[in-house]
Amino acid sequence: MTVSAFDHPWFSGLFGDDTVAALFSADRTAHSFLRFERALTKALGDHGVVDKAVADGVLNMLAGFAPDMDGIAAGMARDGVPGPAFVKQLKQAVGDDLAAGVHVGATSQDLSDTALVETLGAVNKILSERLREAVSALEELEARFGTATLMGRTRMQAAQPITVGHRVSTWRAPLIRHLQRLEDINPGLLVLQFSGAVGTGGALGDKHADVARQMAAELGLAYAPDCWHTTRDAIADYANWLSLVTGSLGKMGQDICLMAQQGLDEAVLGGGGGSSAMPHKRNPVKAEALVTLARFNAVQVGGMHQALVHEQERSGAAWSLEWLILPQMTVAAAASLSTGIALLKSIERLGDS
Amino acid sequence: MTVSAFDHPWFSGLFGDDTVAALFSADRTAHSFLRFERALTKALGDHGVVDKAVADGVLNMLAGFAPDMDGIAAGMARDGVPGPAFVKQLKQAVGDDLAAGVHVGATSQDLSDTALVETLGAVNKILSERLREAVSALEELEARFGTATLMGRTRMQAAQPITVGHRVSTWRAPLIRHLQRLEDINPGLLVLQFSGAVGTGGALGDKHADVARQMAAELGLAYAPDCWHTTRDAIADYANWLSLVTGSLGKMGQDICLMAQQGLDEAVLGGGGGSSAMPHKRNPVKAEALVTLARFNAVQVGGMHQALVHEQERSGAAWSLEWLILPQMTVAAAASLSTGIALLKSIERLGDS
Amino acid sequence: MTVSAFDHPWFSGLFGDDTVAALFSADRTAHSFLRFERALTKALGDHGVVDKAVADGVLNMLAGFAPDMDGIAAGMARDGVPGPAFVKQLKQAVGDDLAAGVHVGATSQDLSDTALVETLGAVNKILSERLREAVSALEELEARFGTATLMGRTRMQAAQPITVGHRVSTWRAPLIRHLQRLEDINPGLLVLQFSGAVGTGGALGDKHADVARQMAAELGLAYAPDCWHTTRDAIADYANWLSLVTGSLGKMGQDICLMAQQGLDEAVLGGGGGSSAMPHKRNPVKAEALVTLARFNAVQVGGMHQALVHEQERSGAAWSLEWLILPQMTVAAAASLSTGIALLKSIERLGDS
Amino acid sequence: MTVSAFDHPWFSGLFGDDTVAALFSADRTAHSFLRFERALTKALGDHGVVDKAVADGVLNMLAGFAPDMDGIAAGMARDGVPGPAFVKQLKQAVGDDLAAGVHVGATSQDLSDTALVETLGAVNKILSERLREAVSALEELEARFGTATLMGRTRMQAAQPITVGHRVSTWRAPLIRHLQRLEDINPGLLVLQFSGAVGTGGALGDKHADVARQMAAELGLAYAPDCWHTTRDAIADYANWLSLVTGSLGKMGQDICLMAQQGLDEAVLGGGGGSSAMPHKRNPVKAEALVTLARFNAVQVGGMHQALVHEQERSGAAWSLEWLILPQMTVAAAASLSTGIALLKSIERLGDS
Repeated sequence: MTVSAFDHPWFSGLFGDDTVAALFSADRTAHSFLRFERALTKALGDHGVVDKAVADGVLNMLAGFAPDMDGIAAGMARDGVPGPAFVKQLKQAVGDDLAAGVHVGATSQDLSDTALVETLGAVNKILSERLREAVSALEELEARFGTATLMGRTRMQAAQPITVGHRVSTWRAPLIRHLQRLEDINPGLLVLQFSGAVGTGGALGDKHADVARQMAAELGLAYAPDCWHTTRDAIADYANWLSLVTGSLGKMGQDICLMAQQGLDEAVLGGGGGSSAMPHKRNPVKAEALVTLARFNAVQVGGMHQALVHEQERSGAAWSLEWLILPQMTVAAAASLSTGIALLKSIERLGDS
Repeated sequence: MTVSAFDHPWFSGLFGDDTVAALFSADRTAHSFLRFERALTKALGDHGVVDKAVADGVLNMLAGFAPDMDGIAAGMARDGVPGPAFVKQLKQAVGDDLAAGVHVGATSQDLSDTALVETLGAVNKILSERLREAVSALEELEARFGTATLMGRTRMQAAQPITVGHRVSTWRAPLIRHLQRLEDINPGLLVLQFSGAVGTGGALGDKHADVARQMAAELGLAYAPDCWHTTRDAIADYANWLSLVTGSLGKMGQDICLMAQQGLDEAVLGGGGGSSAMPHKRNPVKAEALVTLARFNAVQVGGMHQALVHEQERSGAAWSLEWLILPQMTVAAAASLSTGIALLKSIERLGDS
Repeated sequence: MTVSAFDHPWFSGLFGDDTVAALFSADRTAHSFLRFERALTKALGDHGVVDKAVADGVLNMLAGFAPDMDGIAAGMARDGVPGPAFVKQLKQAVGDDLAAGVHVGATSQDLSDTALVETLGAVNKILSERLREAVSALEELEARFGTATLMGRTRMQAAQPITVGHRVSTWRAPLIRHLQRLEDINPGLLVLQFSGAVGTGGALGDKHADVARQMAAELGLAYAPDCWHTTRDAIADYANWLSLVTGSLGKMGQDICLMAQQGLDEAVLGGGGGSSAMPHKRNPVKAEALVTLARFNAVQVGGMHQALVHEQERSGAAWSLEWLILPQMTVAAAASLSTGIALLKSIERLGDS
Repeated sequence: MTVSAFDHPWFSGLFGDDTVAALFSADRTAHSFLRFERALTKALGDHGVVDKAVADGVLNMLAGFAPDMDGIAAGMARDGVPGPAFVKQLKQAVGDDLAAGVHVGATSQDLSDTALVETLGAVNKILSERLREAVSALEELEARFGTATLMGRTRMQAAQPITVGHRVSTWRAPLIRHLQRLEDINPGLLVLQFSGAVGTGGALGDKHADVARQMAAELGLAYAPDCWHTTRDAIADYANWLSLVTGSLGKMGQDICLMAQQGLDEAVLGGGGGSSAMPHKRNPVKAEALVTLARFNAVQVGGMHQALVHEQERSGAAWSLEWLILPQMTVAAAASLSTGIALLKSIERLGDS
């Protein structure tokens, strides 16, 4: 289906991002689930929680496991999470004798949350690359037009002349800060979730930490003793970061829209959008899209904060709200970066002609 | 792609709605575009704006027109709207001799906005049916359990006993009001958009109103002399209505979650969701989903209001923000209604046992 | 205190509104409480729920009642609502013998909600007057400059010339619709709340409707049989209306900011704001304030929708959220209208010179 | 005026905070302005930008300067910022001969932004103290009840027993993270703003950095070469932090509301709120207030992100939006912490009795 502009065959060309969207595909998530379960079974065997032979048997049986995606969809509608149906399929795949070596000490939320942060790890690599690319594009722009003159405008009124370099520097500085923020955020965000039914990790007793540490290492995630089933501050904080990125690019987009106005003529853009009624127009489509994506994420970030009110040991309501919001924020940030970079590269002139 | 939970093969089973989602498909929108253009060409011919023979020729040539969807996608990414590429395809389809009979006096926004309200008209029929169905399900519930006793709870504390009927009536009353509100909203919402490049309808001179009236009649929409390219209050008001619907159902969902708590045991639900770690549980998945969808739409409605700041004769930035938000709000309302109905039907007991 | 810009001695001059703010003062609310209790006692006596002599005695004793405001403040901090402390003061004022004639069948929420809608009734008179005044100012503006030419701008690019009259009409049309919407909303909004502890009105048995009807008439409010303690759709719908008003004015403000840009010079404003660094500037301060207030209310409306998830027979959490948001939205709308009117009157030229 | 609950004599007792609110008073802000101007004049004299004698003269004349607050209010309404009127008063106070030693190289935004971060520095000391106090109260709670048993609840259903200690640890862990986050945020937030009319610091030429460094040291703020007039990411990021704090406490409040339900009886609270209709009730008023404040800030954080789209060298519209939102978020966080601490101290029992 194509309800969201980020999934729509037409709209996603401007607002979506194929690369990052693909990281949220159901197939890839199912694969993440499988990696989690394999890492868990392996660690269970290695630490003697389940018999090594059982663990090896499970891993053997799961080598070629392909989930029944329709079955997961049906299970999701019933259970509110994809985990139970997925785990049931795993247990059927390994057979009754080995089922006891599957999903021991874990719960559906462990699967979903770990798959999420594994995905965000991959997303963040892309976003940080693009941030660096955007910084480079801005440096290049400054090299080309930095000494040109521009009327500095405050409160939408002509104030005093500035250089193009000054304005470009206000576009670049926050992006550099965002790169630093992402480095600060990643260690507390990309953390294995493995805490069991009620978040205590209790099912494995004193083996829990060892199993969790091994799983984290295997999955390329950090280990932290605190369960974050219900304490979603790292997730909300990450949503904030996504919206800081789109917000900073939105400021740049708004500036470029204003600079491209006839009468001001402070920017000339290549490849502007066409109009069905006025073929002479060159619309600053990419610059406008940056504003749109900034305002979109600014709206969404509030929803991620509503989800902080996550009651008791697991809130179906609050947790699901994240699912409805976070992937789109992520793709919006990705699209904003690639659109911003393309916009910067399409600039033919900034400042006085 | 499946960035949005409303499009995702797993999540849409709980949060999405196939029927309403289908109304937002690109194919259906392209078909709406074609209907608009055909109605326009017909009216242009009938009112002598273009030669009758040309108009007939265009209508003839377009009888079997099938848009190149990839071409529209590419155009959208470039132009920021699907209209220009679509119109270009139409003109190619009819050939140079007839091209002058296509899209006369119209602009891309006319196409997109008219397709939107045409879609919303279809959506609203479904939503009002479901609202009525929900009201019926509540009446049935009251018939079954209305005289049972329940502890009335205020500020989450036991207050005084009430009847189940009283609480159910607080779930039902707003739904009846929402039905009335929708009837009040529809006439100002389901209005043809046909105002041309800068919203003046100027290209057709004194023939504009006649052409527009005929188009509106043909398309089953209202006609209003005011262009609403930039005055989006009816759209934001509709978004508010969608969120009122999900909000009222969210209150019901929250109540049912609380009633189903062990220790209170005021509600017994059939078919609750399973848990991968605790097979004994019957989770109130549908009730929680109502809360999630309510909070989701409550977040989104603010974005639709941000889009009211729609500058000059067309804001690419503000208008696009609607595209990123409104379809999902619509589907959220549809899903909330069908989930709410299913939840009500699954109730096995309310109130004292 | 002056935490909010709407209360701050400096900021309220631009963003606040003394007239509407005064309607939300604690003194006036306490007076509304008293009117409610007097109307209740009178109706109780008239309908024989309490002895007529007791009712008359209470009314007599309360003739000169002045609440202890510090006591209510202390009670509010403890009880979460001002009602209990207020009612306790009333009972002390009338003495033990008459206390049984006070607050019978009512609860704190009845007091607060009725005071709220009584206030909103007064607010709405002011807002509708200002809306009409704004429409007049726009008509006057059209009379002065309507035939002047302006470059129509779409996607922030020059498109085709329009008249000033066309653009002004897009500012005016939604305001006229908002006036109509307010008339549609008022009857369902300005409704007496009198439903007792758990919303059933049960304490008065079959006398409840009669007592309520008389109170409603006395207080100038509508009567409706449904308790709206927990069904807050009319309140959220009203918040939406407030934000539609500020949103439409925000579009106008944004347009005027853009028109006043040097290089475009499409508007000349009198009395623009000064700058501490650049005395030559005439900043479009009022036009910017319209944008600010529009975006502010667009943010807040989402909070009012979150408050729709109002659990059981009374949610302290959801209900209080309204108190933190709605008064400010109301004042923002009032300020936006008066600022908008002043802005329109300050315009010295629109369109070509 | 008392439009905002945070300023209201009744409501501020529950939702407001006198200590932090006082930091945002106009008097204190005017004092901050004066400190800024004195530090500037001193640095200008020390670095020879203005004659040392002039600088000393200014400092002398300003020793007893008391601003005309009404004059600033009037100026604010006209200019959209308090700075111009304040600076005019300063210049009058020092006389024409010395006026050239006042406000050199500065602009109104420098005054307002520096006063803001100076205030936030004071706020953050209080908030971090309270965070530590909340952590201590949670440790104490764990010491008292940590080994008691509680039914772990997931999706609002009984799952498996946990200890009170486990749940309390999920309340505490995020607060400790927030303390760390604040330490990470402060250095980039508490930064002098001194960048002049268009943000280039150009008026002082190569003396700018030296003057700025000295001012920063004098005012206890960090110095950074980048002007942050228009790059508001640190401010939005701080708003996010405030809402993370209230969100985490909102989760705790929601849990405690649920625990205090009759039928669950997992918490006994002292000093609960009274009801005007049901004197037997002990309402969890403070716990509910935590939920309210969490949802309030979650709404507001989106507005601070909208303000990131800050056009050109200064946006009156976007910047003002911060003024309408940020102080209230700050006070909401302060109130949430003190309310949360009081709530924790009022707990008489958690878990099994």
